[in-house]
Amino acid sequence: MKRGKFITFEGGEGAGKSTQAKRLAERLERTGISVIVTREPGGTPVGEDVRELIMRDHPTDPVTELLLFAAARAEHVTSVIRPALDDGTWVISDRFMDSTRVYQGKLYGLEPEFIAQLERFTVAPDYPDLTLILDLPASAGIERAQLRGTLSRYDAERIETHETLREGFLEIADAEPLRCVLIDASLTVSSVETAVWQAVSSHLLAEAD
Amino acid sequence: MKRGKFITFEGGEGAGKSTQAKRLAERLERTGISVIVTREPGGTPVGEDVRELIMRDHPTDPVTELLLFAAARAEHVTSVIRPALDDGTWVISDRFMDSTRVYQGKLYGLEPEFIAQLERFTVAPDYPDLTLILDLPASAGIERAQLRGTLSRYDAERIETHETLREGFLEIADAEPLRCVLIDASLTVSSVETAVWQAVSSHLLAEAD
Ligand SMILES: Nc1ncnc2c1ncn2[C@@H]1O[C@H](COP(=O)(O)OP(=O)(O)OP(=O)(O)O)[C@@H](O)[C@H]1O
Ligand SMILES: Nc1ncnc2c1ncn2[C@@H]1O[C@H](COP(=O)(O)OP(=O)(O)OP(=O)(O)O)[C@@H](O)[C@H]1O
Ligand SMILES: [Mg+2]
Ligand SMILES: [Mg+2]
Repeated sequence: MKRGKFITFEGGEGAGKSTQAKRLAERLERTGISVIVTREPGGTPVGEDVRELIMRDHPTDPVTELLLFAAARAEHVTSVIRPALDDGTWVISDRFMDSTRVYQGKLYGLEPEFIAQLERFTVAPDYPDLTLILDLPASAGIERAQLRGTLSRYDAERIETHETLREGFLEIADAEPLRCVLIDASLTVSSVETAVWQAVSSHLLAEAD
Repeated sequence: MKRGKFITFEGGEGAGKSTQAKRLAERLERTGISVIVTREPGGTPVGEDVRELIMRDHPTDPVTELLLFAAARAEHVTSVIRPALDDGTWVISDRFMDSTRVYQGKLYGLEPEFIAQLERFTVAPDYPDLTLILDLPASAGIERAQLRGTLSRYDAERIETHETLREGFLEIADAEPLRCVLIDASLTVSSVETAVWQAVSSHLLAEAD
């Protein structure tokens, strides 16, 4: 049984991650690949409860949040992602470890070395095979999220915050060019879909036969 | 304002931690010291929710549990323990980081170096000034907990498990003799109370004046 591939979507609010994750899954299915779409935090009972807990309790400490997300991730990898990959199923995650690097690391200033250590304990050896970073000017992302009608806690932040997040994602794309592909997310939904498909085809499908 | 002292009680199930924490607090108060008693996990909304979440969701992965406890601890230190100490109040915690070392490290085999790293990020620089390790043969602890009428998840484990936990606590007492005092918890409640008071007096009260 050939192992599944692990693809993650990352990027700022409203960049189109959820939209594109769904479309990519449909395309992969049409080529006969079995695939699941999952999201972070969430994807498991622990993850959903962590998501709620953070909203309800408003942790006072950024380290608390980092560790709660890390706990949800450990559970997500162990009980959803790894079993699917072992089973030959492809996994698409709507946000994953790069969001932690950017939100908790770049934005809240938590130590990158500690965050990397947490990744090793929660993700390794199942790092994503391919990460699609949807890049969009901060103002455009906020506009889209507003149009959609839901504003997350981060949506409400100042524009500078969103620019910092965007920079964080760009730095990751720069630092790990083998894993990450930067996608211009300011184009139409179907142009972005095409760019995503090209990246998946060239990075993963050639060797997946 | 003189900083408060931080005291933790550790040891197996039914060793008398909660009983002695309460008694020590009463004694300290009688000497005019302001003191709070808190517990782990718990002591904060995040901690109480983590405690419930673990019981409800049964995380499949020991790393998930480790990180959930670590998250609760970060919040506990930041929002309860550190502010109290800063304020000159003494803090007594019923279980703390050594329980993680023993349950998640010794019992579940998670890497001690990773656990130590988590301690540095959640506890430092507020490591306990004094840790009272209540030592009891495993069989006696289980008997007491049964008499009390509540059986935790761990109470129901085999006797070998309790012996492993006891060993873990003894190893910590051995490795950190400056911080830890081993107390024979098989004596009567008031004899244990006296031993606890001696340890506190000689380790902390002399310099607290
Ligand atoms: N390329 C696009 N052009 C215009 N609008 C888009 C595009 N992609 C997505 N949208 C719209 O923008 C909004 C946000 O898209 P989506 O929910 O997929 O983003 P997201 O990255 O998942 O956001 P969030 O981080 O908030 O979960 C939606 O209303 C969606 O229909
Ligand atoms: N020295 C003692 N001798 C006899 N019984 C004791 C002694 N200390 C405590 N007990 C009794 O044993 C039971 C367990 O004590 P306690 O709840 O204080 O232990 P604990 O270490 O907090 O346990 P747990 O780990 O389950 O929270 C209680 O019923 C208590 O009254
Ligand atoms: Mg989304
Ligand atoms: Mg107790």
